[in-house]
Amino acid sequence: MSTNLKTIDELITPVVLLDRARMDKNIQAMQDALDAHGVGLWPHIKTHKMVEVAKRQLAAGAQGLTCAKVGEAEVMIASGARRIFIAHSLVDVRVAPRLAALADQLDELRVAATSAGQAEALARVAVATDRPLKVVMAVDTGLHREGVRDIEGAKRIAAIVAQCPQLELAAIYTHEGQMYGATPEEQVEKANEVLQRMSEVRDAVDPELPLWPGCSVTAKIMAATGKVQVARPGAYMFGDMSLSVSSQVMERGDVAVHVLATVVDRPEPGLALIDAGTKVFSSDKSRSGLHGIAADGRDIHAAALNEEHGYLRGDDVDSLKIGDRIQLMPPHVCTVINLTDQVAVVEGENVVDFWQVAARGKVQ
Amino acid sequence: MSTNLKTIDELITPVVLLDRARMDKNIQAMQDALDAHGVGLWPHIKTHKMVEVAKRQLAAGAQGLTCAKVGEAEVMIASGARRIFIAHSLVDVRVAPRLAALADQLDELRVAATSAGQAEALARVAVATDRPLKVVMAVDTGLHREGVRDIEGAKRIAAIVAQCPQLELAAIYTHEGQMYGATPEEQVEKANEVLQRMSEVRDAVDPELPLWPGCSVTAKIMAATGKVQVARPGAYMFGDMSLSVSSQVMERGDVAVHVLATVVDRPEPGLALIDAGTKVFSSDKSRSGLHGIAADGRDIHAAALNEEHGYLRGDDVDSLKIGDRIQLMPPHVCTVINLTDQVAVVEGENVVDFWQVAARGKVQ
Repeated sequence: MSTNLKTIDELITPVVLLDRARMDKNIQAMQDALDAHGVGLWPHIKTHKMVEVAKRQLAAGAQGLTCAKVGEAEVMIASGARRIFIAHSLVDVRVAPRLAALADQLDELRVAATSAGQAEALARVAVATDRPLKVVMAVDTGLHREGVRDIEGAKRIAAIVAQCPQLELAAIYTHEGQMYGATPEEQVEKANEVLQRMSEVRDAVDPELPLWPGCSVTAKIMAATGKVQVARPGAYMFGDMSLSVSSQVMERGDVAVHVLATVVDRPEPGLALIDAGTKVFSSDKSRSGLHGIAADGRDIHAAALNEEHGYLRGDDVDSLKIGDRIQLMPPHVCTVINLTDQVAVVEGENVVDFWQVAARGKVQ
Repeated sequence: MSTNLKTIDELITPVVLLDRARMDKNIQAMQDALDAHGVGLWPHIKTHKMVEVAKRQLAAGAQGLTCAKVGEAEVMIASGARRIFIAHSLVDVRVAPRLAALADQLDELRVAATSAGQAEALARVAVATDRPLKVVMAVDTGLHREGVRDIEGAKRIAAIVAQCPQLELAAIYTHEGQMYGATPEEQVEKANEVLQRMSEVRDAVDPELPLWPGCSVTAKIMAATGKVQVARPGAYMFGDMSLSVSSQVMERGDVAVHVLATVVDRPEPGLALIDAGTKVFSSDKSRSGLHGIAADGRDIHAAALNEEHGYLRGDDVDSLKIGDRIQLMPPHVCTVINLTDQVAVVEGENVVDFWQVAARGKVQ
């Protein structure tokens, strides 16, 4: 694809559009909200996977980055980040040489301890890495994924970490992913439950440890409690149906990522086919079962997807003609970005840049 | 990733494994079945997206390749293919220069006519391309996606094609995707319905036109009828839960692609967490609602996925320890391959090559 395009109209579809001004506004709004309460921001890069986005988060004031995989952290070195937390259960000594190389390029490399059994494996990795690693302990607060289930488990992790000379227990984290789908009122209530659970574990292990929850739905709520020291939201700078329509933590007009698709057929009344299917949108659906909605407010939605086709339905779908282009807000932005090699960065109708999704596919 | 690895045990997970011997067996079996009835094979590369796989399909006797997107066709030139069919509703004159370049590198470039409205747009693309293009007309046979809905629509397409000097009507196609989920008995019955529908349209337009259905579930059934001239299956050389467990058109032991993952946590009895989630498996599920099953026959299945985690359940899951590795058969291989940049090619326990998924992300 040529990089000297000037307008959206010149792009061949399907293509992921990133509105830079909206993204910058969202980055600043989150930073301001956390700064107001003295809460640090370590955004999770699993959503954007782009060096250019991380640079902007760091420039706005983010203290560090959260990554899911070692491969993501390796890519993110180019952002200039000095502190990275790999929030995944590392157990494989085969990654020790890569962790050592990462640690040598950073001021601080943090790793996760997610159960006593995993902590034992982590200690072996740490010894093989032979670098000082800060440990953030995972607490299950309702998602029932990784994280200690009880106080006893937390104490066992703390003991294992204390016995490993390379490891130092430095914080408590959780991913409160069960927040998705909660109403704004429920979000406050559930956030307090999450904090209560984290605090109980923290107080039993070391009352001085900071709390590091992480979810775009609750980041600002958590910061306002004055009880957390770091937030690790992922999707807040882009947004999607989940954060705007479902969780209502941002306006639809602030969502910064859309899929531009072309109507390639109108086989019957009430149905328009577009050139984007699961290989662009992923198979993720909104809570209401949709794969996307028209960004301009028309009643047009992606009701179904095949791999290379989207099926548009809705009261306004018959206004669409073959060859028309339409911008659709995806239900879940993380998996959309994860499918594309690059995004078109736009300001209004102008394409101002193409950014590579450099950490795409770095699952190892 | 180093390319001089010798065994699967040395790989860092998650990683997609491709068993070359099984794939070659599947390629040959499909070719033999079609050859026995004089039916041509134009495999759809949307499943594998790899030049090396296309080369093997062509070497075994495939006449041409089917692609979903222009970008896929551009990548597949390197396979040595001389004939390519782009089975998607092209409507955008912006792709004309790329189509012209493709046509100049091939003996035959085929494009799809999927409705009268789309055919009008296609004719404008063809004029701008200014190259001879063979047209394959789409007939809806039950999937209710692209394709003519009635005889009248077919005649209108034929008339539009006849008036465009660059276009020549050359075949009739369908994708009988509704076959997925049908029992073997239903498959034969439904295949006959599909052929009946295609024949009615064909006979009204031009009784000499060949029929080109395309689906891995029904390719051999279609060939055995003696009524089709070309089959365009996609997933047959790899297989997955859909083709083996659900549709029962191949043995589980012939499935050639698996995801190798590591057990990274055992947070509670009955649950094992692996380091592979939707960003490896995609969000697609099997008909039974699973995201993967143990390849070795143990009762272990991926019951749920987050982006970077899989939740393993089943009667045998408590046999898994942290650090254990497990191979899982995915429900839908097409979307798994579409997420990875490369696959590890294996023969037994040995890693013999890494193949790039070169057409991955080529959605334009």
